[in-house]
Amino acid sequence: MTSQRPALSRFPIPELSTLPQDLRDRILAVQEKSGFIPSVFLALAHRPDEFRAFFAYHDALMERESGLTKGEREMIVVATSSANQCLYCVVAHGAILRIREKAPLLADQLATNYRKADITPRQRAMLDYAMKVSQRAFEIDDGDFETLQAHGFSQDDIWDIGSVAAFFGMSNRLANAMSLRPNEEFHLMGRIPKEKAPSQGN
Amino acid sequence: MTSQRPALSRFPIPELSTLPQDLRDRILAVQEKSGFIPSVFLALAHRPDEFRAFFAYHDALMERESGLTKGEREMIVVATSSANQCLYCVVAHGAILRIREKAPLLADQLATNYRKADITPRQRAMLDYAMKVSQRAFEIDDGDFETLQAHGFSQDDIWDIGSVAAFFGMSNRLANAMSLRPNEEFHLMGRIPKEKAPSQGN
Amino acid sequence: MTSQRPALSRFPIPELSTLPQDLRDRILAVQEKSGFIPSVFLALAHRPDEFRAFFAYHDALMERESGLTKGEREMIVVATSSANQCLYCVVAHGAILRIREKAPLLADQLATNYRKADITPRQRAMLDYAMKVSQRAFEIDDGDFETLQAHGFSQDDIWDIGSVAAFFGMSNRLANAMSLRPNEEFHLMGRIPKEKAPSQGN
Amino acid sequence: MTSQRPALSRFPIPELSTLPQDLRDRILAVQEKSGFIPSVFLALAHRPDEFRAFFAYHDALMERESGLTKGEREMIVVATSSANQCLYCVVAHGAILRIREKAPLLADQLATNYRKADITPRQRAMLDYAMKVSQRAFEIDDGDFETLQAHGFSQDDIWDIGSVAAFFGMSNRLANAMSLRPNEEFHLMGRIPKEKAPSQGN
Amino acid sequence: MTSQRPALSRFPIPELSTLPQDLRDRILAVQEKSGFIPSVFLALAHRPDEFRAFFAYHDALMERESGLTKGEREMIVVATSSANQCLYCVVAHGAILRIREKAPLLADQLATNYRKADITPRQRAMLDYAMKVSQRAFEIDDGDFETLQAHGFSQDDIWDIGSVAAFFGMSNRLANAMSLRPNEEFHLMGRIPKEKAPSQGN
Amino acid sequence: MTSQRPALSRFPIPELSTLPQDLRDRILAVQEKSGFIPSVFLALAHRPDEFRAFFAYHDALMERESGLTKGEREMIVVATSSANQCLYCVVAHGAILRIREKAPLLADQLATNYRKADITPRQRAMLDYAMKVSQRAFEIDDGDFETLQAHGFSQDDIWDIGSVAAFFGMSNRLANAMSLRPNEEFHLMGRIPKEKAPSQGN
Repeated sequence: MTSQRPALSRFPIPELSTLPQDLRDRILAVQEKSGFIPSVFLALAHRPDEFRAFFAYHDALMERESGLTKGEREMIVVATSSANQCLYCVVAHGAILRIREKAPLLADQLATNYRKADITPRQRAMLDYAMKVSQRAFEIDDGDFETLQAHGFSQDDIWDIGSVAAFFGMSNRLANAMSLRPNEEFHLMGRIPKEKAPSQGN
Repeated sequence: MTSQRPALSRFPIPELSTLPQDLRDRILAVQEKSGFIPSVFLALAHRPDEFRAFFAYHDALMERESGLTKGEREMIVVATSSANQCLYCVVAHGAILRIREKAPLLADQLATNYRKADITPRQRAMLDYAMKVSQRAFEIDDGDFETLQAHGFSQDDIWDIGSVAAFFGMSNRLANAMSLRPNEEFHLMGRIPKEKAPSQGN
Repeated sequence: MTSQRPALSRFPIPELSTLPQDLRDRILAVQEKSGFIPSVFLALAHRPDEFRAFFAYHDALMERESGLTKGEREMIVVATSSANQCLYCVVAHGAILRIREKAPLLADQLATNYRKADITPRQRAMLDYAMKVSQRAFEIDDGDFETLQAHGFSQDDIWDIGSVAAFFGMSNRLANAMSLRPNEEFHLMGRIPKEKAPSQGN
Repeated sequence: MTSQRPALSRFPIPELSTLPQDLRDRILAVQEKSGFIPSVFLALAHRPDEFRAFFAYHDALMERESGLTKGEREMIVVATSSANQCLYCVVAHGAILRIREKAPLLADQLATNYRKADITPRQRAMLDYAMKVSQRAFEIDDGDFETLQAHGFSQDDIWDIGSVAAFFGMSNRLANAMSLRPNEEFHLMGRIPKEKAPSQGN
Repeated sequence: MTSQRPALSRFPIPELSTLPQDLRDRILAVQEKSGFIPSVFLALAHRPDEFRAFFAYHDALMERESGLTKGEREMIVVATSSANQCLYCVVAHGAILRIREKAPLLADQLATNYRKADITPRQRAMLDYAMKVSQRAFEIDDGDFETLQAHGFSQDDIWDIGSVAAFFGMSNRLANAMSLRPNEEFHLMGRIPKEKAPSQGN
Repeated sequence: MTSQRPALSRFPIPELSTLPQDLRDRILAVQEKSGFIPSVFLALAHRPDEFRAFFAYHDALMERESGLTKGEREMIVVATSSANQCLYCVVAHGAILRIREKAPLLADQLATNYRKADITPRQRAMLDYAMKVSQRAFEIDDGDFETLQAHGFSQDDIWDIGSVAAFFGMSNRLANAMSLRPNEEFHLMGRIPKEKAPSQGN
């Protein structure tokens, strides 16, 4: 381990000043909100069209009105990203999950063995399906839909679970190909109760 | 097997007339070009934002100028989609590959065992990496990049190989969750030399 | 890809004129019927005793009176050969299946993901068992037999399903060791309705 | 465990007297030689054509002149049958191997972890290839042939190694589907040096 | 295979005379009882503290009063050690199992495919759980405990099954890292009925 | 998720006052040092002999003089425990690793994908071997030893790497069978630089 700062990505990181205006705006907005620029924004910036499509897709899934809470969507991200051994997604979305759910232990549980996490039976069914989409989608059959419906998930909810798992299946592969390094800030975010720590966004 | 037409997707297919104008335009354009509407356009249409992001991402990767030919990018799609057992992508992109490469046997070869396909050593290296991104991206290391560079692939080419494999890793999972059914037309496209068969686009 | 004809097998192909009479007769008969000599006949010919035993076994299983139709036995071949990534068997028996079942899409479906194929529940149960014999026969237990019997399969039918899967498990391994190349004719056979295409045998 | 004799097979065992003459002759000959009838002869007898083809194939591979000794072919059988968890083949061919090689420990070694067996480097290369044919034949490439040739194996020898592994791949699946029970005699055969034990054939 | 004696371990074997008194006493006691020194005692002796802890743990599990017979605990050892391909444990504990259960065939059955062994349904449930602990303990859930309780296993029995499987999971890894060679005596022990063979201990 | 405290283990936790004196002493000592009682001490206490052997073995490996630093041994624990999806070991030993190495990010890196961790090439070789012992020890061969020796590891170091991986292979299985819950304290330990946080031991 050298003392020099490890590379953020195997691929080029353009200067912010050279980026198209819409990318720069998006990046500055997230920096304003979070206090730092999550690496994924910089690592995709050398491909503006892919950057735009990636975040458009991300937002369409993660920000929409849904029968799943935003925290539940982050649970899917952490559990499936761990199965894909994606360092960036586990660490970054682990932080977001801790904050959204105000649950400082949950991300570590989901990242190690989602079967041991402090979640409801409905959330367990959600993650069982998300993991199947992530790891062996070719085996999905009508029985999976019946199980989810028995837990109260609508057809739209099932679409959301599967699509979040599929989107981060892509994201995990991109990040592993890049060797994308998570920002140090993520490791600690959401671990300390608000009354003890300074405010953090995501 | 009943005589009734099998469902195109497990999820709802909206009426074309109810879609936002830009989706309708895109769908009519592909119908004009291909002579039919590939199922994926209909199956994603109930989620307009996801539809837009999906095809924006698809086009950014598959239509851009690249050190990979469009045919080579379709080789990646067929080989990795077969590893993910995705019926829609293997059949639809197998058709596109046959047409783009004017190679009526190649898609069947790549879909069964890409190691037996009639391709160059450079294309074999491309597919070895694409399959690694698709199936065990967490093991990617610098050695993979050195191998690709020895075959003349630039850093941008390597990004393209990995991103196509990653994007269709998502697409395969979406299609398997939907149980998306390929259009019958795809099965025969590009199998018969032009002089014997009517013209086909993609 | 060179313009030179790719090798049919890694092992020697004897001249037809040098073969024992019974091998020559068998080969000429299949050529007469199909219009070409399927590669497997040439590739096994350098070992006459093994050639004889192979085709005797093949015919004993595939030609006998059975509770399974000949088309159903070909379904087993295509699905299990795909799991074993055997190019020759998927392509050659895919052709035979299309012709026997007059089902131009079925082989592509079974070769990609047999769970998505247009088959009856009884045929699905048949393929579930065939895939288990093919991929993890050591786990077979009485429950598998009960499931098959509930679908109306007799003890003899169950023997046939398992034996076809086992025989092609051997055949797939032989073909992959040889790198046996399927005849080009197979790729197109049975894809075009009879009224549009010239007659084809198998 | 009941005191009643466990079934030899899940499928019917015909009376010897009802069998075609050639099957009866073969069975009586092996009984004369070994002192008992190995179960596989009885278990296949209800299908005379398959019985004939099976043993014709077996003899063509296991009895022919070859660059592999008969003992080496049995090594392949034991190692690959263990990978396929086939009780009958491991126990029966373990016995034959002990006798052929006069090596009372070798079968137990190969059946547990062939990498730990008392064999030559050439035999280790033979088993590495046999295991690849048995477990992932779809990955075989020219490099495998070069490795074997470097150990002095001819093209015919490589065919033999692969064919024995492939044939017993079929046999293992048949035996597991039948739940074929090995004769008790096999368990002890070849374990005790000749001067201490009564003569045993195979 | 050379005529020279194969190494017992990849790591050093100290002279008996150089060992601490308690190790020497233990080793001489087992030699007195068995007629030879099982290799594991010699192979661990270069690390006296680990030797003491290993055998203390072993005895705590294997010698204690339990709802499992000593023979049943050896069944767990043989089945799980086979799944881990541990030559020493399969051969040595196979011998002990044959003697304890007076069942000359049982170890070969469990070492090849425990699903085919001559055991009771209760013992089958015990081994199903032991194999799950051994191969995919992360999937254990309350359903496993309910299944075992339905077969009459107490909470203490379930602890014992899991702990024996876990302890030999460690032991198998140590033996494979050492390449620990089983004593020749083990291969034959317990195979010949007492009236025919000289007395054997363990 | 209920507000009630989740169970520490599926198995009984005895009252401290009922324990043998030596167990009580050990438990009080660790509580004195760490400020809390790590769950594993309570969860093993219902089996005093196993408790003693477990911690004797643990200490023999983790506390001895070695060519591996204590921090390096904890790296092995975290990486292999993650491969075994053991929540307790990943969280508890992740905390110890952060403290020993004064490296707040390292445990998260090793727990997600050890190939991406900030470690030296020598430590990477150590973990490659540890993971092989943990996941497929049956494949270890002389080449593994040569690789480690080329990185300067002595025979004793190699023993230590393998034994730590093997011991925690047991520990992971025990913890998953118990569903052992890590103390909340571990999740945050070592994440905050000393100048900002109160002192923590292990």
